[in-house]
Amino acid sequence: MDETIRLVHGNGGRFSHELMEKYIMPHFKNEALAKLHDGAQFDVPAGRMAFTTDSYVVTPQFFPGGNIGKLAVCGTVNDLAMNGAKPLHLSCGLILEEGLPVKTLDAVLATMAEMAKKAGVTIVTGDTKVVEKGAVDGLYINTAGVGMIPEGINIDPERVKPDMKIIVSGSLGDHAIAVMGSRYELALPESIKTDCAPLNHMIMAVLDAVGDKVAVMRDPTRGGLATTLYEIAGQANVGIRVDEYALPIHDEVQSVCSILGYDPLYLANEGKAVFVVEADVADTVLEILHANEYGREAACIGEVLSSNAGKVGLKTALGGVRLLDQLGEDQVPRIC
Amino acid sequence: MDETIRLVHGNGGRFSHELMEKYIMPHFKNEALAKLHDGAQFDVPAGRMAFTTDSYVVTPQFFPGGNIGKLAVCGTVNDLAMNGAKPLHLSCGLILEEGLPVKTLDAVLATMAEMAKKAGVTIVTGDTKVVEKGAVDGLYINTAGVGMIPEGINIDPERVKPDMKIIVSGSLGDHAIAVMGSRYELALPESIKTDCAPLNHMIMAVLDAVGDKVAVMRDPTRGGLATTLYEIAGQANVGIRVDEYALPIHDEVQSVCSILGYDPLYLANEGKAVFVVEADVADTVLEILHANEYGREAACIGEVLSSNAGKVGLKTALGGVRLLDQLGEDQVPRIC
Repeated sequence: MDETIRLVHGNGGRFSHELMEKYIMPHFKNEALAKLHDGAQFDVPAGRMAFTTDSYVVTPQFFPGGNIGKLAVCGTVNDLAMNGAKPLHLSCGLILEEGLPVKTLDAVLATMAEMAKKAGVTIVTGDTKVVEKGAVDGLYINTAGVGMIPEGINIDPERVKPDMKIIVSGSLGDHAIAVMGSRYELALPESIKTDCAPLNHMIMAVLDAVGDKVAVMRDPTRGGLATTLYEIAGQANVGIRVDEYALPIHDEVQSVCSILGYDPLYLANEGKAVFVVEADVADTVLEILHANEYGREAACIGEVLSSNAGKVGLKTALGGVRLLDQLGEDQVPRIC
Repeated sequence: MDETIRLVHGNGGRFSHELMEKYIMPHFKNEALAKLHDGAQFDVPAGRMAFTTDSYVVTPQFFPGGNIGKLAVCGTVNDLAMNGAKPLHLSCGLILEEGLPVKTLDAVLATMAEMAKKAGVTIVTGDTKVVEKGAVDGLYINTAGVGMIPEGINIDPERVKPDMKIIVSGSLGDHAIAVMGSRYELALPESIKTDCAPLNHMIMAVLDAVGDKVAVMRDPTRGGLATTLYEIAGQANVGIRVDEYALPIHDEVQSVCSILGYDPLYLANEGKAVFVVEADVADTVLEILHANEYGREAACIGEVLSSNAGKVGLKTALGGVRLLDQLGEDQVPRIC
């Protein structure tokens, strides 16, 4: 465990094999992966599949409440869930820097395995590359995922219509501020932690109850809630009104934002979902979310308008309206 | 086009959107990708699916006969094909270095699109991250892929039995030597080019003809032919004999290997397949391969033995036998 990663661990020969057998397989044991073929095989039913991918380059790799491995599993699980899919299998592509302590890799893989278990997915195939010291910043992870979309579920921005309600599953900005605090070694309150979590079970509970009345779901990651809503407004060609007073934002996060000049509406979240649902099921959705560990602070934050197509207006506490554009220059790089 | 990639191109906001619309979408136009959701949706039939992933970190990014984008599409298409699957859809995860010329990205994406068309697959979902200058070496690409395995195909090392024939679809070592020559600016013969190619149509032609008589297929990439055969011998618990005189190796590659001290049996290939097939179909397989543009130099190079389980012996031109281990220390890093 005191070892470090060497270039030969990526050469496809004996050392790659040892890395796999000794450090990767023990975390990701399953029948498909055990075959060690260049790919996994599994049976699928006929139906609609979702397929997604994300690379993770967050710095630092460990931060309050999580690490890059937690992001890598939850991010892809959540993208599948946002498509209305039940996540099934993930891939894991590692790019490791020569000299990376094996202990670091081990801690990241342990978290990935834990999150995969929590989400009920298996990591069935993977790939490991090693590059020279300096050619990558510690380790990067790519995960891709597949899942099946149950019949009757149709997540599509074109289904968003006026009078629908906008619901967010919890507080905004925690992830970005937690990573930032860690990166710049700010002495932030301990309560500021990443919100990173696998949302698929919570999402499925909503879809099981009111699936055909959910028009769109999105996880407001890079670009934050504002950018997500701006995209939905554009794709659906509708206006959106958000009520500032209704936005769930933790006091500590709001304070840090005020000091550093960040707007929580543009900060990345890694364990939140935005729902656009028919008005008559908004209360039911909120009830289901409130009953879930990741949805306790869910709130209805606004609604879809028949006017102002393509625009998102924030109705401020003072009664004015501020137009929310998508994220421009202002940004916090490498947050996921 | 004289632009360079900036950190804001990865922030999920307006600049990410512009990068996507202006430089990525024009190459990868298709209905699933056009939705710009965090994931693609498509229908699948009931059956056995293959799922695979690879990250590509080759240096330099351009080399005789190809570039990192060609590898990224062909590598994943070939891994699916080696599972006996008909490749359907790929994902594309880009990690870009701040300051990367957009022209470079454009050339790589153009090649990816060209190869995807050639292979008959669509790139349906993706992700783009940008990291600070120095935090990645130009650009890295991850592709994952899904495909369906036709009924009756069962690629599994456990099906390898004594007396089966070993066939390789063409010459060995070209890719590694081409990349090496490029990296170290060696004045190599122009005929030395990467063999990188999408093999799926050729593989499907073989499977259509004699599918149930193919026990295993592998592409001898990192670790080369020797490591691939060593793995098969171990997984199938059989011995393998390879006849040195039968190995297809280009004279120029053999010469470079002799000068630099490389063994072509351990060098990476990116457009070759190794087949283990029942003896009575070996000639048919060779005929099909010879008729394909990527299989003209295919050869039967040896057979499976009932003795020497787990071992691969190279019967040399002089009549001796040299045991082939898997690749150890000796290696050419970052070849794919």
